[in-house]
Amino acid sequence: MTPPLAKRNTNFGEWFRKVLVEAGILDYRYPIKGCGVWLPYGFQIRRMVTNLLRDLHDKSGHEEVLFPIMVTEPNLRKEASHIKDFENEVFWVTHGGRKPLKIRYALRPTSETAMYPMFKLWIRSHADLPIKMYQIGSVFRYETKTTRPIIRVREVTTFKEAHTCHATLEEAEEQVSEAIGIYKRFFDACGVPYLISRRPDWDKFPGSLYSVAFDVLMPDGRTMQSGTIHNLGKNFSTVFDITYEASNGEHENVCQTCYGISERGIGAQLSVHGDDNGVVLIPNLAPTQVVIIPIPDKEVMPSILAVSETVAEKLSDSGFRVKVDKREELTPGAKFFYWELRGVPIRIEIGPRDIKKKQAIVVRRDTFEKKACVLDDLPLEVRQIVEQMSTDMRTKAWSWMNSRIFRVDTLEKAKGILAKKGGIVEVFWCGTEDCGHGLEQVNAKLLGVPIDIEEKTEGRCASCGKKASSLVRLAIAY
Amino acid sequence: MTPPLAKRNTNFGEWFRKVLVEAGILDYRYPIKGCGVWLPYGFQIRRMVTNLLRDLHDKSGHEEVLFPIMVTEPNLRKEASHIKDFENEVFWVTHGGRKPLKIRYALRPTSETAMYPMFKLWIRSHADLPIKMYQIGSVFRYETKTTRPIIRVREVTTFKEAHTCHATLEEAEEQVSEAIGIYKRFFDACGVPYLISRRPDWDKFPGSLYSVAFDVLMPDGRTMQSGTIHNLGKNFSTVFDITYEASNGEHENVCQTCYGISERGIGAQLSVHGDDNGVVLIPNLAPTQVVIIPIPDKEVMPSILAVSETVAEKLSDSGFRVKVDKREELTPGAKFFYWELRGVPIRIEIGPRDIKKKQAIVVRRDTFEKKACVLDDLPLEVRQIVEQMSTDMRTKAWSWMNSRIFRVDTLEKAKGILAKKGGIVEVFWCGTEDCGHGLEQVNAKLLGVPIDIEEKTEGRCASCGKKASSLVRLAIAY
Repeated sequence: MTPPLAKRNTNFGEWFRKVLVEAGILDYRYPIKGCGVWLPYGFQIRRMVTNLLRDLHDKSGHEEVLFPIMVTEPNLRKEASHIKDFENEVFWVTHGGRKPLKIRYALRPTSETAMYPMFKLWIRSHADLPIKMYQIGSVFRYETKTTRPIIRVREVTTFKEAHTCHATLEEAEEQVSEAIGIYKRFFDACGVPYLISRRPDWDKFPGSLYSVAFDVLMPDGRTMQSGTIHNLGKNFSTVFDITYEASNGEHENVCQTCYGISERGIGAQLSVHGDDNGVVLIPNLAPTQVVIIPIPDKEVMPSILAVSETVAEKLSDSGFRVKVDKREELTPGAKFFYWELRGVPIRIEIGPRDIKKKQAIVVRRDTFEKKACVLDDLPLEVRQIVEQMSTDMRTKAWSWMNSRIFRVDTLEKAKGILAKKGGIVEVFWCGTEDCGHGLEQVNAKLLGVPIDIEEKTEGRCASCGKKASSLVRLAIAY
Repeated sequence: MTPPLAKRNTNFGEWFRKVLVEAGILDYRYPIKGCGVWLPYGFQIRRMVTNLLRDLHDKSGHEEVLFPIMVTEPNLRKEASHIKDFENEVFWVTHGGRKPLKIRYALRPTSETAMYPMFKLWIRSHADLPIKMYQIGSVFRYETKTTRPIIRVREVTTFKEAHTCHATLEEAEEQVSEAIGIYKRFFDACGVPYLISRRPDWDKFPGSLYSVAFDVLMPDGRTMQSGTIHNLGKNFSTVFDITYEASNGEHENVCQTCYGISERGIGAQLSVHGDDNGVVLIPNLAPTQVVIIPIPDKEVMPSILAVSETVAEKLSDSGFRVKVDKREELTPGAKFFYWELRGVPIRIEIGPRDIKKKQAIVVRRDTFEKKACVLDDLPLEVRQIVEQMSTDMRTKAWSWMNSRIFRVDTLEKAKGILAKKGGIVEVFWCGTEDCGHGLEQVNAKLLGVPIDIEEKTEGRCASCGKKASSLVRLAIAY
């Protein structure tokens, strides 16, 4: 049996690294720093998540495409603030075979500069708008900070990036709202709570008008940026000369947005729902939702196996993804351990006594609650347990996060809380960049102004003391 | 309306390039040579094909994984013949940000050298075998030959590569057979005829014991290698030190195989089935199988649209992928043109007369045969037409290829045929490398000895005239 995991709540970093390997999700021992290998089970989870992303984007009128991984240096350099920000973290391809290339190619750090020269070719008139495209693939960052599997990597293997073009800025604004809606649905499906904030100007995506970010609170009290949405205005369309002929015959630059979610979306779920026994997957995203474990018995083993198969078939007919673990070399205890580690939501145990009673024992992964269920009722019972479990996982995760949001009125208090417990601190902010940087003196990142809080309040800027009508969030961020 | 395509049979290269853009499959105007963009419709076709590949591999016990795109130079260099062959066509990453990297990274030209250092970590004992893994992603070749979209590119975007490890060479041999079976099923599902040949030693995959290849005959008479299967023996496992503990306690090197299919698998279908009007998709791989075109009529338009929707719903309930083309700005003729270009297998026209007669006109994309069908019978009629069409497309493609296989006894004749008509020439070969190169003097490639011909015959080597029991195939190859 494999060694125990670290404690999730007291040693999260170690827990996360271990659980990835032990649960067969990702092997981070690849010989290049910041690059990991998706293992078969991890890849199945990744498939569930990318299929969810595809579904959400397809249903809202986005079209999937695939652009090349390399970008020419001149194109990467076109938008000045964009290259300024990425210059220090781009991988450069300089040679083809034994010969130096005439111009260098960047491994895309994100795909604006790969896509937009093509958008220029595709857009002529108003009839070609809007364009709403997305792709899922690798992007590359030569990270100089400490790398961590999934959370901070050099090859981001699962970057879903959407790019849109519109005739007007209003339509781009509406697209930002649509994107926020899509990302809410994504994280809700994952059962992962989030904070939505408008990043301060000095932390927006290079080349954008403004950026909105989804932050997830991790078990160690730090936040992880897990999705971002950018209104690009006409910044890129001006330098890439993307225009359409408006009804008045004038050529106008299009207005653009882009938004992305990476494998951090997977890392967030694993972290938020996991426990000391391993991963806990929310049922709709579990590659295997139900595992059936026959409890060996010398006399009635054939009937136990037969019943297990029948139950599996019935549950499968009801739409569940089911496995029967018939491995003879493992004890039931070893199987429990194996599937708990991998976070399979429902375990069904079927032993000699159950056969007699025409029942099975159903165990929830999140609470380990056990329930004896009549065999014939299993599809209905499992359905109910799965729904209850999904609700409970969401509720628990949201209350946990909400209990770690603190509203304070002084930087002293903010600093104390963040240093001690982590979490999110809300203070008032007058909105100036000077005071913004002042707030960050608490050794935290200014996540930005909440756009998910309706409440209108007033207070005093925690930096300058002047009247302020904006709350702002501070957190220690990954 | 877009300009007409080139003639497929007389100007295939031009036809192929045009059809890719005009049908919205791939845009090859990306600013890096040999790199193309999968457009929304092309991506949908790619999804169908990759899903088919996934299905075939999952069902035969392969597990999907994902390895990094970069490989360290020392690992790429480990297997001597491997690097020798790839050295001139590897893209090298030499810089991270502004700094030169300590060791160079290759963009994987194929993933043996990325995967096998990890296999070494994963395999300990016999119980860890066999390993059967695959991934779908990009590989890179700095091609020095003329690039062509899909057929010869610098970023191969859709490389399905499988890699297996076994305890014995016999098991590796069996795996080669399984892989041949999988690839047969793949090309059969695509309706694409193929030749299976064992490549001569001087043309095998670098680092393998031997290579088996699937070749497809293209409309211009040249063959395109569209799938390869390699028995690697212990060549890689020796240099990468991949061992398992056998039952006798000895550490033995594993035996390996690998096999790959790229987007050439898509290119083959488009080429083999296409016609002067565009793409013709085989129904099981068509993203849209049926398009319904309402024929406008001032008086009964609402009923025409209502019937179109009802028909769409019924067909969709019967498992077809259906679209109703309700665009008001296009004439029916323009719509016919649009969907013919994109190869949608079935067109259903519903006009005022049809409404009265409670019928619809069903048109096959491959033959343009029309049939009036009673509305209520449509699901059944369409099912039958789709099945007939699939059979006909396969049969037609196979007979076309078979009619271009010529068995001759002299190199003179071989040369004459190949220069005039292309196709495949079969001659006898004594099996020596000298004579093999002698045969290639007809300005063709020696595809190898057929492994899909049962017949046992004898003849004389077309090069040296000695008795020979092996046929060998020659063709002008892409």
